[in-house]
Amino acid sequence: MSFDVSQVKALVFDVFGTVVDWRSSIIREVSAVGERLGVSGDWEGFADRWRAGYSEGTRDVREGKRPFLTADEMHRERLDLLLDDFGMTGLSEAETDYLNQAWHRLDPWPDAVEGLTRLKSKYVIGTLSNGNVGLLVNMAKYGGLPWDVVLTGQLAGTYKPDPKVYLSAASLLGLEPGEVMMTAAHTNDLLGAAKVGLRTGFIARPDEFGVGSPKAELETDESIDVAASGYIEFAEKMSV
Amino acid sequence: MSFDVSQVKALVFDVFGTVVDWRSSIIREVSAVGERLGVSGDWEGFADRWRAGYSEGTRDVREGKRPFLTADEMHRERLDLLLDDFGMTGLSEAETDYLNQAWHRLDPWPDAVEGLTRLKSKYVIGTLSNGNVGLLVNMAKYGGLPWDVVLTGQLAGTYKPDPKVYLSAASLLGLEPGEVMMTAAHTNDLLGAAKVGLRTGFIARPDEFGVGSPKAELETDESIDVAASGYIEFAEKMSV
Repeated sequence: MSFDVSQVKALVFDVFGTVVDWRSSIIREVSAVGERLGVSGDWEGFADRWRAGYSEGTRDVREGKRPFLTADEMHRERLDLLLDDFGMTGLSEAETDYLNQAWHRLDPWPDAVEGLTRLKSKYVIGTLSNGNVGLLVNMAKYGGLPWDVVLTGQLAGTYKPDPKVYLSAASLLGLEPGEVMMTAAHTNDLLGAAKVGLRTGFIARPDEFGVGSPKAELETDESIDVAASGYIEFAEKMSV
Repeated sequence: MSFDVSQVKALVFDVFGTVVDWRSSIIREVSAVGERLGVSGDWEGFADRWRAGYSEGTRDVREGKRPFLTADEMHRERLDLLLDDFGMTGLSEAETDYLNQAWHRLDPWPDAVEGLTRLKSKYVIGTLSNGNVGLLVNMAKYGGLPWDVVLTGQLAGTYKPDPKVYLSAASLLGLEPGEVMMTAAHTNDLLGAAKVGLRTGFIARPDEFGVGSPKAELETDESIDVAASGYIEFAEKMSV
């Protein structure tokens, strides 16, 4: 049974992994700094541990174990640990801050900008990320992401998949939850949105964790409203 | 003495009157509804009284006399009164809601989209309005306003010129107040921003209150950082 898209007015997107290839971008920036410092290391491992620090941070905030802090702040905490672990010393504060902002300079997946631009012609398109507003705005400038609106967990004071984040997005847009479709490469995020009445779209990103990594979801749950293997197929299924 | 623009990273704009011609747009929509209902009236007066309801509402929220309510909600309150006063009866709930959303369908000033598009090539550009997020997003789709980010009093839980609104914009963007320029056709708004460290830009909109109305500010205070007679001159003064 095909999903009736006519009730959907806005599409909000998970960003890290769904819209941008965080892992390749971070590996590139970190290894360049390592080379400059004359340090070699497992840069894939560096990227994965950096990402894990953020995931753990958002979980701790969601569970009330820590007060709210932004993605930039969580990235910096973990970065300081990793620089130490990898023996990367001698960076100035400005250089460290610039490296921390590598998360503002993540490359879009090759089909993302074209797909988003098509979707924007019919729908309001926005982020719904756990990244902070400034990070997401800088990333959009860097990658040419044509968002109509930048929505984040920061505006709800907590993180996905807390229901408050999905509901705040619909409320800020002045829409009913069922008029908003959460779109992500991660079923967990989509199920969180569905629980409070949002519609759901899945776009597979098989290379998010490295080519061939078993961590990527190639398929999603059958309860998800629209599933596609890429942005162009997704746009077609959304009738644009 | 010319202002050094190199420290400015983001420009945030007042919207009603500064970017869009609210008054002509509202007069057009209201008079069309009047004609359909066979009612004649002072539609300029209708538009001005509708606008005044919003101004009074934001003031009451700022002064703590009322709990926070959105621009859409304030518009609807005043609209219901005005429809009654003007003897405009017989609109369905859907028609009334559509008319209330006339504030989502305001025409940009003729030079605004070109100027904003130029400014966007060098700066982050965003709204900083007392309108709600949904209203501003719909207006941007309607008028082709190329915002990077939609910031509003709603995100700070109060209204300009409360200092919290200006500071929340800088904070959400991850910038220092002095890296953000508030831009408006209204000196009061700019002085509110300057008080908490934002830079200030003035763009004269002489026709906001009707051609030749003395209510418009043709010039601004000498403390304002950059003043221009239109968007193109403003972009040039901002070195784009």
